[in-house]
Amino acid sequence: MDTIGSERFKILDYAFYPDSIAVVGASEHPLSFGYHFLRHLIEHKFKGAIYPVNPQNEIIQGLKSYPSMLEIPGNVDFVICCVATDKVLQLLDECALKQVKIVHLLTARFSETGRKEAIELERQVLAKAQEYGIRLIGPNCMGIYSPESGIAFGYNMPGIKGNIGVIFQSGGAATLLIQNGAVAGLRFSKAVSYGNALDVNECELLHYFADDDSTSIVAAYFEGTKNGKSFFDALKTVADRKPVIVIKGGKGNAGSRAASSHTAAIAGEQDIWKIAFKQSGAIEVDDIDEMLNLLMLFYELPPVYCNRAAIMGGGGGKAVIAADLAEAAGIILPPLPFDIKNKLKAIVPGLWDWLSNPLDTSIWGDEGIKLAEVPRLFLESPDYDFLIIQSSEDNPMADDIWAYIMKMNTTMILNNFDRRGKPIIAIMPRVKSYENPMDKFRWKIIEEEKAKLINAGVPVFDSISEAVKALSRYINYWRRHQTNIHA
Amino acid sequence: MDTIGSERFKILDYAFYPDSIAVVGASEHPLSFGYHFLRHLIEHKFKGAIYPVNPQNEIIQGLKSYPSMLEIPGNVDFVICCVATDKVLQLLDECALKQVKIVHLLTARFSETGRKEAIELERQVLAKAQEYGIRLIGPNCMGIYSPESGIAFGYNMPGIKGNIGVIFQSGGAATLLIQNGAVAGLRFSKAVSYGNALDVNECELLHYFADDDSTSIVAAYFEGTKNGKSFFDALKTVADRKPVIVIKGGKGNAGSRAASSHTAAIAGEQDIWKIAFKQSGAIEVDDIDEMLNLLMLFYELPPVYCNRAAIMGGGGGKAVIAADLAEAAGIILPPLPFDIKNKLKAIVPGLWDWLSNPLDTSIWGDEGIKLAEVPRLFLESPDYDFLIIQSSEDNPMADDIWAYIMKMNTTMILNNFDRRGKPIIAIMPRVKSYENPMDKFRWKIIEEEKAKLINAGVPVFDSISEAVKALSRYINYWRRHQTNIHA
Repeated sequence: MDTIGSERFKILDYAFYPDSIAVVGASEHPLSFGYHFLRHLIEHKFKGAIYPVNPQNEIIQGLKSYPSMLEIPGNVDFVICCVATDKVLQLLDECALKQVKIVHLLTARFSETGRKEAIELERQVLAKAQEYGIRLIGPNCMGIYSPESGIAFGYNMPGIKGNIGVIFQSGGAATLLIQNGAVAGLRFSKAVSYGNALDVNECELLHYFADDDSTSIVAAYFEGTKNGKSFFDALKTVADRKPVIVIKGGKGNAGSRAASSHTAAIAGEQDIWKIAFKQSGAIEVDDIDEMLNLLMLFYELPPVYCNRAAIMGGGGGKAVIAADLAEAAGIILPPLPFDIKNKLKAIVPGLWDWLSNPLDTSIWGDEGIKLAEVPRLFLESPDYDFLIIQSSEDNPMADDIWAYIMKMNTTMILNNFDRRGKPIIAIMPRVKSYENPMDKFRWKIIEEEKAKLINAGVPVFDSISEAVKALSRYINYWRRHQTNIHA
Repeated sequence: MDTIGSERFKILDYAFYPDSIAVVGASEHPLSFGYHFLRHLIEHKFKGAIYPVNPQNEIIQGLKSYPSMLEIPGNVDFVICCVATDKVLQLLDECALKQVKIVHLLTARFSETGRKEAIELERQVLAKAQEYGIRLIGPNCMGIYSPESGIAFGYNMPGIKGNIGVIFQSGGAATLLIQNGAVAGLRFSKAVSYGNALDVNECELLHYFADDDSTSIVAAYFEGTKNGKSFFDALKTVADRKPVIVIKGGKGNAGSRAASSHTAAIAGEQDIWKIAFKQSGAIEVDDIDEMLNLLMLFYELPPVYCNRAAIMGGGGGKAVIAADLAEAAGIILPPLPFDIKNKLKAIVPGLWDWLSNPLDTSIWGDEGIKLAEVPRLFLESPDYDFLIIQSSEDNPMADDIWAYIMKMNTTMILNNFDRRGKPIIAIMPRVKSYENPMDKFRWKIIEEEKAKLINAGVPVFDSISEAVKALSRYINYWRRHQTNIHA
């Protein structure tokens, strides 16, 4: 593999871009990880050689299975280990003979159990791997997602790559981020879930992602670290080069307890983590939803340095609430300047002096069709830095006309949206129950319209509240970044 | 109507329970309010007489139409006025002759325009109504929703009544609350959108809802008030008797500006509003989503006075994040007591000493079926006040088994849920795009399972973050309430 350099960090390329993978404990049993991981490689059309290893089958999922690592012809770069703890030491002996570079130990029930014999076994595993020069990811983790190579650790992960890199101690949380992010339009360069961090740890991963040209944005979830100084240095190295959005898991009493039994992490002093995130320039968020909201902005929008918004769409109450939430989040809504008022006078002579920012669109009546001309006024005006368009699902019409208005809203956004131009952010309601016959039709329309916007690259938020909170942090990031550059 | 007493407040019964309604400006044109409001009465099977009034049609929506109010046989209790501002004075003359008790002035473009002649006309309308002793709701508002009578101001509003009363200055926002609330399982006693509050105002409405036996919970949205002292007294009267959840619209510069052009409201000093809400015992929230979340708890749960939660469901990362969010919101997660540990030892001998609160359910493997026994341990334990069950959509299985686990989750909740017992709160993920073929199957299952829970009366939240914030405020409300009672 010619991309592998001699630097220590580049050894991880063997996990993200291996020429060959052995799935040890590969299986036909649909409840087992040996089943899932092999199936993911097949479904994602992994580009190299796939070697299922399991002495009990000759064929697994249509592929020739090998009774042991030693029977595989040629060398193996990367091993996904799905067997139980008591088989790991012997596996490492076999891996050494096959010149394996990295082993992903999906295998759990090591130190995170808190049991003495499991902690001792984990220690022996590390010692043996180090003796052989084999690197370990995990144990107790989901390992690698690399859409470019065709490696995944969950179902429904996109086969197309993007520029978001994911470093998550928790595999379940990483799965949620990737699956839900994919539906929101996000795509990822690569992801790693690294569990107990026995060998490859958060510091090494941060340095790797800092250097990784295919990653422009980093999303991370940490439960603990064993070396605060190295961690801070690594985090700062990445954050100096690209936006980093981070969750610290295990902040309170119960959370620390949970982190300890989850990945054997020592959650540590929370104030120190907070300061480390702040000083490194990483953006701390509290849950996956907040992370997705921020990622959407970094993924879809150009930098935004100023906070002057125009808001339009929906009725009066919606506009008032939007204005309050925006201002509370630190976003300014400048009143309509004279030239926009003047242009509105030509468009809607009966309403122009009553219109404001936020722009209530509920009372346009027969002139509603002229709304399509309004976004351009804001986008062309030097008085506004971005435009938020709320859907008008609060319109009082019956289903057919209600749907027509919702679709008009989408068309208005798409006709004015330019990926490289002044940003438009859309607010579409959260979908409620499809199962409720009362509203089935309307939620279906909302979904269809939302999908059109997402496919075009428009950031779509479920609520104005989430949008303005994320936007405020996004703008602050770029302001700080700008200051740093000019300092 | 024998429910009408002689007290001043009871005059509003004529709006919520009229024997006859005239829709003035009734129409066949599906873009007009005269169309919507007549259609709502027909669809909701209004119990009394319906009189469409419009000189241009003989039949409207299948009903005999009257050229003017004066042609209607007999008296009319309640008028829904959908005609333009210049026709309102004459209409009031006709209403006086028909002994109309209350007129809902849907008609907009009065004082909220800020125009001198519109303000003057509004003044004349009030003077004339007062001269005739006719009460006015509005102008510039959506008026009345009364499921018991069969009156509605929006499509997709439930025909079945509940115990939530809605006092909203904004009709669009009220529509969102009722439509989205309905899908979340909420039902309403009655709602009023009162717009410019020319005659019937927030104070009178608050007193009416305080006395209204069919309303046990009040949801309110105010943009302004003309008399702070009366407002506070009215609000306190309601809040002393029932939970009141309130949004103040028009808090910042842009919001006040928007409120003024929305309902001609003088938004006023925000600190005074905040103090008024606090001292009256009302719960202030910032948007409709937050309001819905709190309403769900008040609607579905018995009072909860203590904050000790057990959380179960989902994998490790999810559990850690849940614990952090819960503790940040002021909810305590006591560690598992000895007797629960002991019972778990019998249920899952290989895992019991590793399990904690929050309870990670991702590693139960073949023993996952035994999870069904766990909720009872928490519900029967004196160490926990309520149980939060997160869905396990982060499980790593393929679609069919993934769906099986999701359904098992629902069954586990339903088998343990008792409306009058210790509360169970469910967390189900927000539905993402149905339009994305990648995830279509999974979101459909989530929707189906969510609907089962909602139909059974389980409060279902879109995220743990929203659930713990709402729960914390809910518990604080009951604690304060308890203190008041014992003081």
